[in-house]
Amino acid sequence: MNPIWVVGMGPGGEAQMTLQAREVLADCDVIVGYTVYVELLKKLLPDKEYRTTPMRQEVERCRMAFEEAKNGSKVAMVCSGDAGVYGMAGLMLELTEEYPDCLLEIVPGVTAALAGGALLGAPLGHDFAVISLSDLLTPWEMIEKRLRLAALADLSLCIYNPSSKKRADYLQRACDILLEVIEEERVCGLAVLIGREGEHGEILTLRELRERQVDMFTTVFIGNSQTRKCGGRMVTPRGYRIVV
Amino acid sequence: MNPIWVVGMGPGGEAQMTLQAREVLADCDVIVGYTVYVELLKKLLPDKEYRTTPMRQEVERCRMAFEEAKNGSKVAMVCSGDAGVYGMAGLMLELTEEYPDCLLEIVPGVTAALAGGALLGAPLGHDFAVISLSDLLTPWEMIEKRLRLAALADLSLCIYNPSSKKRADYLQRACDILLEVIEEERVCGLAVLIGREGEHGEILTLRELRERQVDMFTTVFIGNSQTRKCGGRMVTPRGYRIVV
Repeated sequence: MNPIWVVGMGPGGEAQMTLQAREVLADCDVIVGYTVYVELLKKLLPDKEYRTTPMRQEVERCRMAFEEAKNGSKVAMVCSGDAGVYGMAGLMLELTEEYPDCLLEIVPGVTAALAGGALLGAPLGHDFAVISLSDLLTPWEMIEKRLRLAALADLSLCIYNPSSKKRADYLQRACDILLEVIEEERVCGLAVLIGREGEHGEILTLRELRERQVDMFTTVFIGNSQTRKCGGRMVTPRGYRIVV
Repeated sequence: MNPIWVVGMGPGGEAQMTLQAREVLADCDVIVGYTVYVELLKKLLPDKEYRTTPMRQEVERCRMAFEEAKNGSKVAMVCSGDAGVYGMAGLMLELTEEYPDCLLEIVPGVTAALAGGALLGAPLGHDFAVISLSDLLTPWEMIEKRLRLAALADLSLCIYNPSSKKRADYLQRACDILLEVIEEERVCGLAVLIGREGEHGEILTLRELRERQVDMFTTVFIGNSQTRKCGGRMVTPRGYRIVV
């Protein structure tokens, strides 16, 4: 049987795919993925067969990939960003217990923390944490605890899934927790529509962030105590001593 | 003046470079970087001019890039992995205060957390922290504090720079701190020589990790409380309910 490739396709545009991801997608017959990302790929690779499921049908989507592979197809399961970071690689590996004959190959990709970071400057230049505000699969109390401890650890933060229709006030709630520990003027950043049309970044304070309504196409960055604005960019220094 | 490109070249091999990184490197005249990474690139792009400095001469390396750009060259400053994650993007941005005419473009790349994660399975499938054990630029007490709080937050951990000649016992010291909070049987992983000849991964317990001597070409992963071994891979589940 062909291996199934679990491919991190980067944040959106072809330019931020790895050469390996590009090659695997060119070589496969069937591409399985979440509806939104598959639409991006169809423009690039119109001649592939596509299989999609909407959000919240991730297990079905993975089974689809295994079934296609069992039928002899060369299958790529695509994830936005990286294959592992909130991606499908974990679930696919868990399902190999049901499909023991299937071999998985994981292809990493540029996750939003890195692509959004590059857009803003270098907000993750020192130790950092990545935390999702989605409480679909994680109790909110655990998310709160992680935010509080990460702030106490003076880690820079990259926040995924900061908002959705049902969770319109989650970013505000997260900011309130951070403000228990962090000063209001802390340098923060927003990266919107990374790698897609309309991509833009914005630097703002934690106080301003608390008042901001963001959407699901936004990745949020919270600086550490050393983070500063530098020529309009957000920089978390590693600590090199610059002697002029 | 041409912009200076600060390029994350991924973990080593060409396959894990992004298309954008590959294109920028092909297009530039001068490539500036740390000696070790430049040697990898010379095989791929033998016709470029190269400028290098050894470790601990990062500020001089960056100034070299600005001076080359001022002389009219198309310059790429290369970093292994991502440009921002412990990379040169932050320092380059700080130095634009001395070189206000220079424009920087940051090109993100696949950092070792992602490439090593893919090699091992999906160790960073849920919230995680990235922490470096290098105390060259960070007080060891701060590193200890971050490890302790990250463990209390039940974040998966990716540890960069786990060892060097002068810091042979740092990983052991880090494990001792983690063992204050985490059980000895916690699933951990090692990713060695990611993207290069001799690449390999290994899954072991935190107790075994404490006794292991690793080198500077190793990236270390510590699972969270839900991480498990799955068909020989390390998986931190996101929490999907698999109903058979």
